[in-house]
Amino acid sequence: MVWDAWGIPAGHQPLSERIRALLTQVFGVSGDPVARRDEGDVPLRESALTSAQRAGLVAVVGEGYVSTDHRDRLRHAGGKSTPDLLRRRAEGPQEAPDAIVCPADHDQVLAILTYCAEQGLAVVPFGGGTSVVGGVEPVRGRFSAVIVLNLYRLDQVREVDPISGTATLGAGLTGPRAEALLGADGLSLGHFPQSFEFATIGGFAATRSSGQASAGYGRFDDMVQRLKVATPSGTLELGRAPASAAGPDLRELFVGSEGTLGVITEVTVRVHPVPETVVHRAWSFPDFEVGAAALRAVVQAGAAPTVLRLSDEVETGMNLARSGDIGGNAVAGCLAVTTFEGSAAHVAARSAEAGAVLSAAGGTELGATPAEEWEHGRFAAPYLRDALLDVGVLCETLETATTWSNLAALKEKVTTALTDALGGQGTPALVMCHISHTYSTGASLYFTVVAKQSDDPLAQWSAAKRAVGDAIVAAGGTITHHHAVGIDHRPWLPDEVGELGVRILRAVKAEIDPTGVLNPGKLLP
Amino acid sequence: MVWDAWGIPAGHQPLSERIRALLTQVFGVSGDPVARRDEGDVPLRESALTSAQRAGLVAVVGEGYVSTDHRDRLRHAGGKSTPDLLRRRAEGPQEAPDAIVCPADHDQVLAILTYCAEQGLAVVPFGGGTSVVGGVEPVRGRFSAVIVLNLYRLDQVREVDPISGTATLGAGLTGPRAEALLGADGLSLGHFPQSFEFATIGGFAATRSSGQASAGYGRFDDMVQRLKVATPSGTLELGRAPASAAGPDLRELFVGSEGTLGVITEVTVRVHPVPETVVHRAWSFPDFEVGAAALRAVVQAGAAPTVLRLSDEVETGMNLARSGDIGGNAVAGCLAVTTFEGSAAHVAARSAEAGAVLSAAGGTELGATPAEEWEHGRFAAPYLRDALLDVGVLCETLETATTWSNLAALKEKVTTALTDALGGQGTPALVMCHISHTYSTGASLYFTVVAKQSDDPLAQWSAAKRAVGDAIVAAGGTITHHHAVGIDHRPWLPDEVGELGVRILRAVKAEIDPTGVLNPGKLLP
Repeated sequence: MVWDAWGIPAGHQPLSERIRALLTQVFGVSGDPVARRDEGDVPLRESALTSAQRAGLVAVVGEGYVSTDHRDRLRHAGGKSTPDLLRRRAEGPQEAPDAIVCPADHDQVLAILTYCAEQGLAVVPFGGGTSVVGGVEPVRGRFSAVIVLNLYRLDQVREVDPISGTATLGAGLTGPRAEALLGADGLSLGHFPQSFEFATIGGFAATRSSGQASAGYGRFDDMVQRLKVATPSGTLELGRAPASAAGPDLRELFVGSEGTLGVITEVTVRVHPVPETVVHRAWSFPDFEVGAAALRAVVQAGAAPTVLRLSDEVETGMNLARSGDIGGNAVAGCLAVTTFEGSAAHVAARSAEAGAVLSAAGGTELGATPAEEWEHGRFAAPYLRDALLDVGVLCETLETATTWSNLAALKEKVTTALTDALGGQGTPALVMCHISHTYSTGASLYFTVVAKQSDDPLAQWSAAKRAVGDAIVAAGGTITHHHAVGIDHRPWLPDEVGELGVRILRAVKAEIDPTGVLNPGKLLP
Repeated sequence: MVWDAWGIPAGHQPLSERIRALLTQVFGVSGDPVARRDEGDVPLRESALTSAQRAGLVAVVGEGYVSTDHRDRLRHAGGKSTPDLLRRRAEGPQEAPDAIVCPADHDQVLAILTYCAEQGLAVVPFGGGTSVVGGVEPVRGRFSAVIVLNLYRLDQVREVDPISGTATLGAGLTGPRAEALLGADGLSLGHFPQSFEFATIGGFAATRSSGQASAGYGRFDDMVQRLKVATPSGTLELGRAPASAAGPDLRELFVGSEGTLGVITEVTVRVHPVPETVVHRAWSFPDFEVGAAALRAVVQAGAAPTVLRLSDEVETGMNLARSGDIGGNAVAGCLAVTTFEGSAAHVAARSAEAGAVLSAAGGTELGATPAEEWEHGRFAAPYLRDALLDVGVLCETLETATTWSNLAALKEKVTTALTDALGGQGTPALVMCHISHTYSTGASLYFTVVAKQSDDPLAQWSAAKRAVGDAIVAAGGTITHHHAVGIDHRPWLPDEVGELGVRILRAVKAEIDPTGVLNPGKLLP
């Protein structure tokens, strides 16, 4: 990925005329992008790694796999939240890790962790670097230096069991690479979060990722059958069976541990045959309330599609779910997107059952095209954010989840918090929302907020983020449904698990990472 | 429950003539039951509770709710494994708790735990007392006395949310009582383990229970949305949303904690409308391998029935799944039982899809009757075990789970371990097996083993249990799919989570139960 924006250069597109006109009209910005800094010109403090430490790391992974190169350090300087990208684009020096270390396998990860614990070097595990919550920020904490552990060489498919529908994947495999390797065996993971193109198997597990086909294939947490984890105290292999009553499920301590308790090096995941049939169906609902009730009905009936999403009126009106047509003529009401995947017989049965439920609940079928358009453009939104940031428009996303009965209230309170916090700073906000993931007991809400940047956009967003986090917690939502905690959500972790829950997490960390070198400053408040 | 057997007196039936004839033929026993001891005649050591301690407990729960009565102590003397029942029937003194304490609510549980931690009194949380792994054994450990905390007064439905399909249930509610109270709102939990009639909501959560309708409604762990837990260090409330990425899922530490980390006092569970339609369909398969492949096909297609079970050839031949007809004319091959529950439309769609998959995979439909017979008799097996024990026949069950690809090998190795271990003692064993729970990646195996009792049936079974536990672990299975760890499975916990996993569990316990009063001797080796 490029150091100061999302993705690869080829993905970056100038804003369309239609979007520029919209921005001028709504936010009064010209739409002309400012130039970004060249990587080579960005000041970095010198690497704090001693030459002895560098040699110690090289002794484990080999000479070619420890880098203190300026560009390498910049490209591991953190994640891809809007504040991250604003900091990269600002004047002045940039924080960066002191070295990037690239182990070849589990045993090298283990050896690096042991070495770093001895030396007092902070370690940031790094997959795709797509965190939007500060999860891969190169924080030194109380240590002399911080290294990034880039896991890209852990890129093997270790074992495929087509009978059981499982595969053991290296933590460093990206989404597309995992799909390609599994595809050779006629299998698919079916995990398609927005970070899919860059993020990795280990990162999906460490952050409780959830993909766009979660209604059909589950969250990544649901897919995890077995984990191999390297810690400064040794190796853990967790998950002996599809289900077990052998005490607490320790996998669930490491899924979501965000690199603070260990480095996930291998994940055995549930996979399925590449679908024989995929059917796209789009729907419109008169309003969000009717649409949400329809999604609830279809999930609670046990007839969920593979993909199931609903945009609210504002998002539908902006065509945000049909990125090629933003600002163009929109569907009336609220757009819902569904797909059905599987054997021809399963798709026929499920599509008929689900279609009947959605129609009975007030849905009007729109055919396949809007759903196909959504799928086609579904990884494009982060690139659009970069183009907006470049023309002085603030754009960020955030997400939460709650029960069905609390969904409308939570949506209203989050929207109000955002519009109040940004409007109160003289920068009125456009807030769009969709239901991105559904469960029988509730759903997630995914918000996109756009406003004109103030003179200090970092402070501007920081105030809004504080307000909206407090609003989410007060309204009974979770502080994050699939973005994880990282640095940005730490203040609200006690609201999630209580002070005693935080003590439990600290006790686990003290047991397996007694020197505290693993990803300091993340997750735990 | 009666103190020395399963269930209530009305459930106990003499063996049928057909079963007696079978026992004489196969095991050479007469079929005449031995008399059991009268409760009043069983010697117990005196309660070790001091009068000051008794007063301290009374100060929290009130005079009527602390008992040191002989019969009360006997009725809380442990669980209902075959070794438990053999010990109760043997001559000599009986282990029993020093007192039974019955708190009214969460705050009283909290106060009792604080008091016991101060006084050094061991605490055994107690729901229905149905543990078959020693989970409620009154172990004093290093403490002066052990109290049982009977939670029957925590029997309220605190909150019902029919929109979200959730209900907050008191830990002491039994299965039937929870269903009755939910039924008044048109809702059902759908959790029907064999212990259903006596076991409690708190016990289901503490042991990772799994019910007979798990293919449709999930394991109890899947149903848990939120937990309230009392610990000596305070209260935990875990689970803010249907799904969250806010770090490790600490619910999964307490689900399956078996009373060693805290006392679960309230559980918010997923519920569903009482099914509008229930359809029963039985099937026969030519052999277990074909049947297992058919179950796999239907689950992996996403078309699972609500109940989905398959008996092997031996179990089918004995009619064990049709308890009214044991020893009578059996279905040929292997019997599978399915039910389909939900709205009429859902049942029609799912039954058609699943039926087509099962037929295509080699199933022959047998109509509703065998499935209805299974459902009718499904809670009777533990009573039958008592009748067998009384006539000198050993009968016990055990269970495991593994991936689909390893299922046949695991089944064979467990069967061999049991037949070798019991046959080697001169008591040839009859081993029956069924698939009781299915997942897309694998299934559980539930074994029933019957043999003539030796002169020392406790030692006889102990040797077989050791052999079969080792065989399960060596063959890649989990040591328990839904019976939990308790005392009996502790030796194999390191095989499940590793020595480092055990250290993590100990660290968590040390943090929240520093004096170690909570259920000593259970779960942790």
